[in-house]
Amino acid sequence: MRHLLGIDGLSANDITSLLDEATRYAHPHDPIVTRGVLRGKTILNVFYESSTRTRTSFELAGKRLGADVVNIAASTSSVTKGETLLDTVKNLEAMGSDAIVLRHAHSGAPHFVSRHTRASIVNAGDGSHEHPTQALLDAFTIRQRLGKLDGLVVVICGDILHSRVARSNSLLLGALGTEVRLCGPRTMMPRDPTVLGPTVRVFDRFDDAIEGADVVMMLRIQNERLAGTVMATTREYARTFGLNERRLRLAKPEALVMHPGPINRGVELDNAVADGARSVILDQVEAGVAVRCAVLARVLLQ
Amino acid sequence: MRHLLGIDGLSANDITSLLDEATRYAHPHDPIVTRGVLRGKTILNVFYESSTRTRTSFELAGKRLGADVVNIAASTSSVTKGETLLDTVKNLEAMGSDAIVLRHAHSGAPHFVSRHTRASIVNAGDGSHEHPTQALLDAFTIRQRLGKLDGLVVVICGDILHSRVARSNSLLLGALGTEVRLCGPRTMMPRDPTVLGPTVRVFDRFDDAIEGADVVMMLRIQNERLAGTVMATTREYARTFGLNERRLRLAKPEALVMHPGPINRGVELDNAVADGARSVILDQVEAGVAVRCAVLARVLLQ
Amino acid sequence: MRHLLGIDGLSANDITSLLDEATRYAHPHDPIVTRGVLRGKTILNVFYESSTRTRTSFELAGKRLGADVVNIAASTSSVTKGETLLDTVKNLEAMGSDAIVLRHAHSGAPHFVSRHTRASIVNAGDGSHEHPTQALLDAFTIRQRLGKLDGLVVVICGDILHSRVARSNSLLLGALGTEVRLCGPRTMMPRDPTVLGPTVRVFDRFDDAIEGADVVMMLRIQNERLAGTVMATTREYARTFGLNERRLRLAKPEALVMHPGPINRGVELDNAVADGARSVILDQVEAGVAVRCAVLARVLLQ
Repeated sequence: MRHLLGIDGLSANDITSLLDEATRYAHPHDPIVTRGVLRGKTILNVFYESSTRTRTSFELAGKRLGADVVNIAASTSSVTKGETLLDTVKNLEAMGSDAIVLRHAHSGAPHFVSRHTRASIVNAGDGSHEHPTQALLDAFTIRQRLGKLDGLVVVICGDILHSRVARSNSLLLGALGTEVRLCGPRTMMPRDPTVLGPTVRVFDRFDDAIEGADVVMMLRIQNERLAGTVMATTREYARTFGLNERRLRLAKPEALVMHPGPINRGVELDNAVADGARSVILDQVEAGVAVRCAVLARVLLQ
Repeated sequence: MRHLLGIDGLSANDITSLLDEATRYAHPHDPIVTRGVLRGKTILNVFYESSTRTRTSFELAGKRLGADVVNIAASTSSVTKGETLLDTVKNLEAMGSDAIVLRHAHSGAPHFVSRHTRASIVNAGDGSHEHPTQALLDAFTIRQRLGKLDGLVVVICGDILHSRVARSNSLLLGALGTEVRLCGPRTMMPRDPTVLGPTVRVFDRFDDAIEGADVVMMLRIQNERLAGTVMATTREYARTFGLNERRLRLAKPEALVMHPGPINRGVELDNAVADGARSVILDQVEAGVAVRCAVLARVLLQ
Repeated sequence: MRHLLGIDGLSANDITSLLDEATRYAHPHDPIVTRGVLRGKTILNVFYESSTRTRTSFELAGKRLGADVVNIAASTSSVTKGETLLDTVKNLEAMGSDAIVLRHAHSGAPHFVSRHTRASIVNAGDGSHEHPTQALLDAFTIRQRLGKLDGLVVVICGDILHSRVARSNSLLLGALGTEVRLCGPRTMMPRDPTVLGPTVRVFDRFDDAIEGADVVMMLRIQNERLAGTVMATTREYARTFGLNERRLRLAKPEALVMHPGPINRGVELDNAVADGARSVILDQVEAGVAVRCAVLARVLLQ
């Protein structure tokens, strides 16, 4: 695997093999085994949109494996002054980058540059398209907690239409035989959700979707997007599509609560649920570093 | 010692032992002995207020000991978007941080988060409360130059009320038996300065305070704070509470001149004094890295 | 060589020896030989003007040799709040910096601070004065491609007056016996170009300058500077001083096309030329890391 551009295009085997590899880097990992793995490799974090959370996770992963990691905040940077994305990437490649971790506002940007560079491209989120390492860390977390992925029911609730997290998760879970239930305001649902995978079902009412679910994955709601819907307030949103304890009781007793963060407390997620016994939100964050270690090692060493 | 939250709560033994430890990392240190000490440890510099000086000092200390160091400018960062301080810290902890160096505008913020994390918290300045590594590096500098701390007289002059540097220094010097003389504009003095330690005395006139002092520690005056006093101009402030050569002659002949930086030249400190033979301002900066090495090693290894 | 302040002051021997040294770090370098060379050394990138490109190149060079590298964006930093450049540098030196890579808007800033610090100063661009590592990487690229420098003809075209790249290149090429032809709008030419070196000739018309040239080096045109000339539009500039395929045919058949980046495509450089077979623009970027490795090793180890 030379690049990781999206879940789209990965086989079930590719996915499972990355998840297996990530366990090597998960806590408690053996620093003696993993430490020098990427020594002498150069990784550039090129973020056209700021995301301290994802950037830090990639940075820690790269440093943990001994690579040289350099951050480039392309959003505020002179790299891009009068320069095309391609010129920037060609320049960074020429400096001797082995991998470029790219966050970009335009869907498909990583795919485009991957066709013109010797460096490995890792998609760290492109527009409303894909966020493959997020889907991998979510799957890693579910598998670690529930022992498997196939045959489970995962609800994803929120702004499905604009969410690269929903998209990458639907594709990944579909590939592994997990049923995916999508729900959210009608204006935030894609016209044809079946493009998101073979196992997708759409629900209008959250209470119907959550019935008997193994996992409830809540998306962060963007206030600016909410303004465009019939639900004028976050309070209204919380009542209809927020996850609270009452609603969670409709899922399986051992159901997991997930969120890609950062949480809007009191909007898509009640405090009692966010901090409750079934929340695995911090496990997701922890899995993020392990999964990114596995991805960087895979694209750089194989 | 799992955290370093403040000087308050440290015994004289704790302080002396940290200062002793810092000598191992002071110039000229033996890179072979110290280099790998923190290899495999992860340190996050989380700064909600920007402070390149303190951040750089901590970053150099961590890197010198072989740790992986990652900077997070939380003031401008999406980490904090719609997220509580506690959520941010829990997330960073979940990424596998061993220590979080925290600068925050709210007094007590490091204490609060330390009660909810497995990571070691090092206070790099919290509001007008404490700045413990600054007090330690000041004490280190004095001890290195004058051979001891107990029995000395240290004057601290400036905006005592709002200064975490004055507070941490008063507490530390009090614990070690050093007399602390505070002076500054009346509106910039705490109502009850005795809370700052058992050895504190307050002076209205700088000339009285400096009489026979071993150390004169000048604080940076904030122009915006000056506006609230009867002294409308920096010139007026310099005349009443600035340190010049005439005034310095009232101290002991070998008295040290100190400043936490950055200096307002010509306001709290005359050029001739700032650059004079008795100024140890750059020794303080040098001591900063050594002291922070000692603190990071202490909280991470013991 | 304790500092690298400019090409001015370097002998032909100094330059050749740096270029020879850079080949050790050029692709494909032997990581086992070069990796630990600067272990235990501390390099600070202090940029008063933002330049992600140059900063990243220096950062990669330092990290590749095993040094601890810390970035300080002095333009936006509290380091400089109420502090002179000299105070800032003295502070950074006191923290134990072995080398300070300095980008500053004022010509001569690196020379000034070099006289007051024990740290090695590397000029990463000072005002419209010098940019010595750019000239070195340009020379490295030419020598690598054409096998030599003496006896060649290099055209530099653009805003010569304000360009530190033109200045450093003219000085370096002059020292090595390369003929330098300068051309550009009359308002962008220095009054006395002979100060730029013994081998400089000035041309009004680009077509005359390029005749039989071995290398054509195009400078980035600043739109704000263009406004001050008789050429009101970039289109007009492109027609008179831009490099296109027609014009390039006037140079030698094997002539190299160079540009320090970032390119204004369609202004000083046509797409067909920028991406054509004779463009060595990305070779320049690649050479940059090798040359900066050589410079850092030279000032820190000798």
